[in-house]
Amino acid sequence: MTASEPAAPPLRRRGERMRRAVLAAAVDLLSTQGLTGATVGAVARAAGVHETSVYRRWGTRENLILDALTTELDSALPVPDTGRVRDDLLGFFSSLARLLGTAQGRALLRLSVEHDATLEDRRGPYWSERLDRAVVMVRRGVERGELAADTDPGLLIEAVSGPLFVRVLLSGAELDDALVRGLVDLALRGALPRPE
Amino acid sequence: MTASEPAAPPLRRRGERMRRAVLAAAVDLLSTQGLTGATVGAVARAAGVHETSVYRRWGTRENLILDALTTELDSALPVPDTGRVRDDLLGFFSSLARLLGTAQGRALLRLSVEHDATLEDRRGPYWSERLDRAVVMVRRGVERGELAADTDPGLLIEAVSGPLFVRVLLSGAELDDALVRGLVDLALRGALPRPE
Repeated sequence: MTASEPAAPPLRRRGERMRRAVLAAAVDLLSTQGLTGATVGAVARAAGVHETSVYRRWGTRENLILDALTTELDSALPVPDTGRVRDDLLGFFSSLARLLGTAQGRALLRLSVEHDATLEDRRGPYWSERLDRAVVMVRRGVERGELAADTDPGLLIEAVSGPLFVRVLLSGAELDDALVRGLVDLALRGALPRPE
Repeated sequence: MTASEPAAPPLRRRGERMRRAVLAAAVDLLSTQGLTGATVGAVARAAGVHETSVYRRWGTRENLILDALTTELDSALPVPDTGRVRDDLLGFFSSLARLLGTAQGRALLRLSVEHDATLEDRRGPYWSERLDRAVVMVRRGVERGELAADTDPGLLIEAVSGPLFVRVLLSGAELDDALVRGLVDLALRGALPRPE
């Protein structure tokens, strides 16, 4: 950095560094020790900050955990815009399958369905919100005429993502590229424009 | 019953009555109190039988719980054979949605994904086995020429069932007939025979 570049205020930079360190520690503890291990005290110790700083910034343990999950998943699940609905969906759902294939991704999903009396039930809808962002890929496909005008974008996203979640949570079956391709193609063929 | 009808041996009848009473008590306790509440002792007390009789018949708590779940779900999830793949699938998945819409069905699904150190992990695959029985409906559709010859029957069943499970476990969104119809029609259109 040269002297002529505007530097961020030192306080803001320190705040952002602290935020990243705390969120990384929270994701790490959630993945390795589950909800019960991710107390504010444990996260603060792992991040090397004071517990009071964590409370000052996030207010509650719940806010901290939701912020950690959101930050982690939003960066792991970009929504592509290639101009072709099939490529967009293959890209997005390959990322989701990869994420759910990691120990961390599985832990995050698993703790989303676990009961925890210390947290309000705001964790489940959180995955739905991630998937809501994927709906735009289908909408663009409809607008370009690649898919039928009466396509239900949310339903299509559910039909592709549902089996991925279920394999992790219930059957333990593998997530691979062939599965993602099979699900995307089945759903897309089902949503093709139909002759009158 | 008239005197001329052959009667089941009294012992066998008593054994079957005991089996049903114990399984009903197990399902009831699983639904209302979860895995931790469904101990062999509690089930035996609720069914009015001796704990030793339960151990003599099922051997382990795990076998008892799996037997209870299997009996409950197999009778709640018949696999229709109407001669039309769409009617078969609508019938089957409407039953599944209805089951998952009851407090009992939700509890059974929820405990399938809960960790429990006292049980080996044989509960998840159990749902997959139930769905495996559904695959035959798609196979018959392929044989009748209603669906493309290269249809993957397991994948189609996953694409319809996945969203139902995910709605219960993650999003909390409703399961209704319109959802079942939408998912069945999307998947079936995706599997229609295609012109060469």
